[in-house]
Amino acid sequence: MTRILLFNPNTSTEVTDLLVRVARPFLSPGSTLVPVTAPRGVSYIATRAEAAIASGIVLDVLAEREGSFDIAIIAAFGDPGLGGARELMSVPVIGLAEAAMLSACMLGQRFSIVSFSRALGPWFRECAAMHGLVERLASIRLLDEPFASLANVQDEKEELLIDLSRKAIDEDGADVIILAGAPLAGLASRVRERVSVPVVESIVAAVKQAELLAALNPKKASAGTFRRPDPKASLGLSPALERLLLAEPAEKAPSP
Amino acid sequence: MTRILLFNPNTSTEVTDLLVRVARPFLSPGSTLVPVTAPRGVSYIATRAEAAIASGIVLDVLAEREGSFDIAIIAAFGDPGLGGARELMSVPVIGLAEAAMLSACMLGQRFSIVSFSRALGPWFRECAAMHGLVERLASIRLLDEPFASLANVQDEKEELLIDLSRKAIDEDGADVIILAGAPLAGLASRVRERVSVPVVESIVAAVKQAELLAALNPKKASAGTFRRPDPKASLGLSPALERLLLAEPAEKAPSP
Amino acid sequence: MTRILLFNPNTSTEVTDLLVRVARPFLSPGSTLVPVTAPRGVSYIATRAEAAIASGIVLDVLAEREGSFDIAIIAAFGDPGLGGARELMSVPVIGLAEAAMLSACMLGQRFSIVSFSRALGPWFRECAAMHGLVERLASIRLLDEPFASLANVQDEKEELLIDLSRKAIDEDGADVIILAGAPLAGLASRVRERVSVPVVESIVAAVKQAELLAALNPKKASAGTFRRPDPKASLGLSPALERLLLAEPAEKAPSP
Amino acid sequence: MTRILLFNPNTSTEVTDLLVRVARPFLSPGSTLVPVTAPRGVSYIATRAEAAIASGIVLDVLAEREGSFDIAIIAAFGDPGLGGARELMSVPVIGLAEAAMLSACMLGQRFSIVSFSRALGPWFRECAAMHGLVERLASIRLLDEPFASLANVQDEKEELLIDLSRKAIDEDGADVIILAGAPLAGLASRVRERVSVPVVESIVAAVKQAELLAALNPKKASAGTFRRPDPKASLGLSPALERLLLAEPAEKAPSP
Amino acid sequence: MTRILLFNPNTSTEVTDLLVRVARPFLSPGSTLVPVTAPRGVSYIATRAEAAIASGIVLDVLAEREGSFDIAIIAAFGDPGLGGARELMSVPVIGLAEAAMLSACMLGQRFSIVSFSRALGPWFRECAAMHGLVERLASIRLLDEPFASLANVQDEKEELLIDLSRKAIDEDGADVIILAGAPLAGLASRVRERVSVPVVESIVAAVKQAELLAALNPKKASAGTFRRPDPKASLGLSPALERLLLAEPAEKAPSP
Amino acid sequence: MTRILLFNPNTSTEVTDLLVRVARPFLSPGSTLVPVTAPRGVSYIATRAEAAIASGIVLDVLAEREGSFDIAIIAAFGDPGLGGARELMSVPVIGLAEAAMLSACMLGQRFSIVSFSRALGPWFRECAAMHGLVERLASIRLLDEPFASLANVQDEKEELLIDLSRKAIDEDGADVIILAGAPLAGLASRVRERVSVPVVESIVAAVKQAELLAALNPKKASAGTFRRPDPKASLGLSPALERLLLAEPAEKAPSP
Repeated sequence: MTRILLFNPNTSTEVTDLLVRVARPFLSPGSTLVPVTAPRGVSYIATRAEAAIASGIVLDVLAEREGSFDIAIIAAFGDPGLGGARELMSVPVIGLAEAAMLSACMLGQRFSIVSFSRALGPWFRECAAMHGLVERLASIRLLDEPFASLANVQDEKEELLIDLSRKAIDEDGADVIILAGAPLAGLASRVRERVSVPVVESIVAAVKQAELLAALNPKKASAGTFRRPDPKASLGLSPALERLLLAEPAEKAPSP
Repeated sequence: MTRILLFNPNTSTEVTDLLVRVARPFLSPGSTLVPVTAPRGVSYIATRAEAAIASGIVLDVLAEREGSFDIAIIAAFGDPGLGGARELMSVPVIGLAEAAMLSACMLGQRFSIVSFSRALGPWFRECAAMHGLVERLASIRLLDEPFASLANVQDEKEELLIDLSRKAIDEDGADVIILAGAPLAGLASRVRERVSVPVVESIVAAVKQAELLAALNPKKASAGTFRRPDPKASLGLSPALERLLLAEPAEKAPSP
Repeated sequence: MTRILLFNPNTSTEVTDLLVRVARPFLSPGSTLVPVTAPRGVSYIATRAEAAIASGIVLDVLAEREGSFDIAIIAAFGDPGLGGARELMSVPVIGLAEAAMLSACMLGQRFSIVSFSRALGPWFRECAAMHGLVERLASIRLLDEPFASLANVQDEKEELLIDLSRKAIDEDGADVIILAGAPLAGLASRVRERVSVPVVESIVAAVKQAELLAALNPKKASAGTFRRPDPKASLGLSPALERLLLAEPAEKAPSP
Repeated sequence: MTRILLFNPNTSTEVTDLLVRVARPFLSPGSTLVPVTAPRGVSYIATRAEAAIASGIVLDVLAEREGSFDIAIIAAFGDPGLGGARELMSVPVIGLAEAAMLSACMLGQRFSIVSFSRALGPWFRECAAMHGLVERLASIRLLDEPFASLANVQDEKEELLIDLSRKAIDEDGADVIILAGAPLAGLASRVRERVSVPVVESIVAAVKQAELLAALNPKKASAGTFRRPDPKASLGLSPALERLLLAEPAEKAPSP
Repeated sequence: MTRILLFNPNTSTEVTDLLVRVARPFLSPGSTLVPVTAPRGVSYIATRAEAAIASGIVLDVLAEREGSFDIAIIAAFGDPGLGGARELMSVPVIGLAEAAMLSACMLGQRFSIVSFSRALGPWFRECAAMHGLVERLASIRLLDEPFASLANVQDEKEELLIDLSRKAIDEDGADVIILAGAPLAGLASRVRERVSVPVVESIVAAVKQAELLAALNPKKASAGTFRRPDPKASLGLSPALERLLLAEPAEKAPSP
Repeated sequence: MTRILLFNPNTSTEVTDLLVRVARPFLSPGSTLVPVTAPRGVSYIATRAEAAIASGIVLDVLAEREGSFDIAIIAAFGDPGLGGARELMSVPVIGLAEAAMLSACMLGQRFSIVSFSRALGPWFRECAAMHGLVERLASIRLLDEPFASLANVQDEKEELLIDLSRKAIDEDGADVIILAGAPLAGLASRVRERVSVPVVESIVAAVKQAELLAALNPKKASAGTFRRPDPKASLGLSPALERLLLAEPAEKAPSP
């Protein structure tokens, strides 16, 4: 049984529930989801500052849950803390944006990211750059107006998001659309017949990429830039994180 | 049931058999493999010229088999004919190199491609560039000496390929190794404990990415650069390909 | 006498005739044109799939004609099969797009490609990328409407193509215009006084670049990525191509 | 009087003291340093994970000290939390790496970063990429052996660091050397006569760039990607950071 | 005392006076300005040809004044002759554009360059490319209409330049504005409250960067690409330049 | 009759003679060479400073000779003053490096530049960057030792230059070699049988590219970044250059 930690770094439990609801039907028989919501932070991460805050919290939570999962998904588009988590943990860690973008690459040459808040632009762009995928990114298209509630933003803005998707296709040359952001989970399947190119459902991409990594069963790197760091003392961090930073590097035992 | 066409564009049936043998244990319950070997061409594609020859043959075979599969894998590292096939077919098509490289991206920042013949270098490099992944490519490391037989090249060269992998890690900064080329299928799991970073098994990556795309169930683009081309008359091509080029664009019917 | 093979990979003999008509007045005394039209394929190549089909046919025809020419021009903008042909043949091979783009580089910093069919966009863009010239490409501007006949498309669309050229100059920053595609041969000289920057006539550029290469009289590479590949057996290919793939690498004899 | 917050995101007070000792002689009459050491974290940040941890702590400390400084220096080479801090704070914030690299750009075409621990490599490289300066980076050269104490690492490794600098010049094409990392503060002036190109003292560069920004007296952006984010509620963060995230955007009052 | 040569490579003495007037209040106690106006050339450099003419004149003037300054600013946005001067002179030389662009990098991710004449576009773009800063450049926005007099262009066009700045912010994604060109000196502080992102005053940036370099007190490179060239005889050049080209490389004596 | 100005921006008349001797046999019947040697400057340009000096002299000489040639070659590898000359002159101007590099692009994917003096490296690299050809440049390989005389450097260093060429092929991945620098004119044909990839003779490439441009007969741009600049008064420049800067833009009359 592959235990997939689905960690929502936002504090919004209704978004976590939504992600689980959308992802669960796509799980393979041998997989199970372990949903966790951020105990601290903001209800939805949108800016560089909020992503910086979240990145430490991601490490805290993964450290605390270590041993209870076989692979982790950081389920906020933008992938806060991904590099550090991939370095520190002995099991694979992937990001929601990473999974969606890499999956989109197989459906066309360039993809556009469409979402509901202008504030997300810089973070999304830096995320694509961090993954070396700027050449594959046609555009980022964002709404620029308030929304009533995070839980219902995908219903409230459905028409406007379809309009943005069309502009991304017609004006920016997108071959694929990613409806980005955890609060939009499930929208892709609802709008797919009204958008003229493939639409990627990010959380489904993430769960299936997690299963792919489980199948590849990669060993933990003991060399390269993602090897486990040398043990290091720390001051004032959470006990779990302090312990993890102090731990000796050890290779993950191979699957039997 | 998802029917995955595993098309080996090389004429070597023992390589096709090997790919099936390695991939089959990783298939999900709802998937089945349809293995096909190139009826024309060379026993293993290595150069730009051989890839150009193969790209037309890929289209021929996919056109001929149309309707008998739900997704296709072009199972030669280098992905001959991928762009054209993705454009022309109404179901998703992925390449072995594409699947391996995108999967490697989730295991580190930069990957190296390691294989058994110097002749493969230019084609592999142009393949990485075509996919916009040069920034993620640490190096291509290739043996430069003859091998006794294609069917046994992975046994014959195992030690040398491990040595190359180590050089890629130590000197080129690779976080991940891809043992590239269909004749090396199955080698990754055998050498994994002797390489200090994750090693990607390309055909397993390809089969799981195929299942991921099946889960995403993308519609056929009717816009963007991978929309079905306009119908066009042709001269002297295979009947199946002639028919496919003449067909009216039609969106894939949505899944029930 | 330098025999320049002018190979039109489209099946349209009127386009071949047009290319010859436009190019011939620019031939140097020591050069002669050997025009050949594709025996198979489509009347004009526009998509990735059609380019993939053409690339194998290019190799077939060049293999069959080997020995009857001193240099070859692949006379479709997009350069199908160029890399493979350059690798395989012992004499120089150049592409129509390559010759036009490199020539344009000497007339300004950035050029725009203007042509008559939207379908050509992805292929042209990938061609510019293949040649490493994206930084020099200001834009690709294409008409998006049907045309009555290929043979007369340049007359029918003359005004619209001039309009597109002006937009490329005013909005995209083009210093040079390339009217791209074999069916537009001859148009550049007709519209030159109505476009405010230099307009490159692709087939004239190709013929003069062919003569330049003849003057440089380059030896066939026996090293690097364009050395003659090792001999390789094949299955089901044309006799000429099978023979060429099997041939021992041999350096071109130096000119006396 | 310009109050420059010199925030060391490492927990090592002796490094903070060292930075102040090196920087103070270069302060202009109108400037004063406000040194602060991280209350939590690790004694020296080296990995992606440690940088992620530090980035949240940077925001905490800056939020807590808000109003007590006119400009802030994040004094760890690698610039943890820089983007978020620049976004959130109403006064300018700069990074030690940023200041050193931009200053190096005025002394040559390409610079090399030389430091004392192999673990720093990935973080430094990602920092240079984040600043869009990869084209200016000749190489990163790092020692790969343990050191006795952080406080004395610059004395212990002086010869080896000079050797690395020479290799960066001779083999990598460096025009300028940056001795990177807060624990190396002061070393540049000691070794300058033994290195054949300019050596940048990072903390001096940072203090002078801080004074430059004070002279430019930039207003806080109310547009663009560094405008003050919209107010947002949070959960479980430090009181100061919670307050800052909740604050209404307000432009910095212009200097009288 | 640091003597900063402020060399205006334009022949317009009123522009030199303006630069001095704007810069002087920002000088540190230990600095003094040595203003010099080009004795030959054009009143304001705008094109590649004029920049080429200026680059030789820059070398002439710097050679002639050698020994009378400790650092030099080439005070035309576009930095004519900068590379050669940096190579040839034993003291640091910086450009007005370089100083402004590097300073802007600390105030946001991308900057736009705004100026008063369309003719400046190619030169400014090539300047940004020369400095490897294209990734940080959001756009160049230029007026396209005549102006009455160079001395008053900043007053005459103030409103239009503010409009262009706003377009750069809203449409091109600029985080920072550089009002470029020596004739616009002083305008930044006048318009700052009407532009919603930081506006960089180029000459202030240049003077403070000059003081920063004076603080770093870099030695003259005796290796790398900015080492003093080997002595070389010349013909028909100005006596000072001839002498400088003939001089033996000598390291700048370290400051006492 | 096409009059091709072959302008050597070095003051060495024996190099001019050599260039003419090598180029003349390749002239087409309708072409004639007009050789000119720089009246001022250095005997061979090697550094950024010397290139800056030369760029003004190039404009002086071209202005003075205006009307006496139909196309100009700036015959120093590095192309001093090319951009300005192309802007200012009403006839085409090309550079020796530009012509050689663009020609090399048709003979392989990447070329290496091989020459006789280490001092040339930065200038050559910046030249390749200026032309947007860095992606096509495999390496620059330079001798690092004195030579006896410029006139005989190609004989003296023949063996060493062949060695460097082999290293460029074997270690750097060069498909083509450019023996760069006017003093090496004629060497390519002498060493061609001893180098395993094509060797480009730069001056032959330049003369044939000049004839190609003559065949294309481009009009002078009246738009784009190479349009004739607006008339401008100047001070202290050569009479011819002053006159040219003052001239009204006028389109070149079309050929009859």
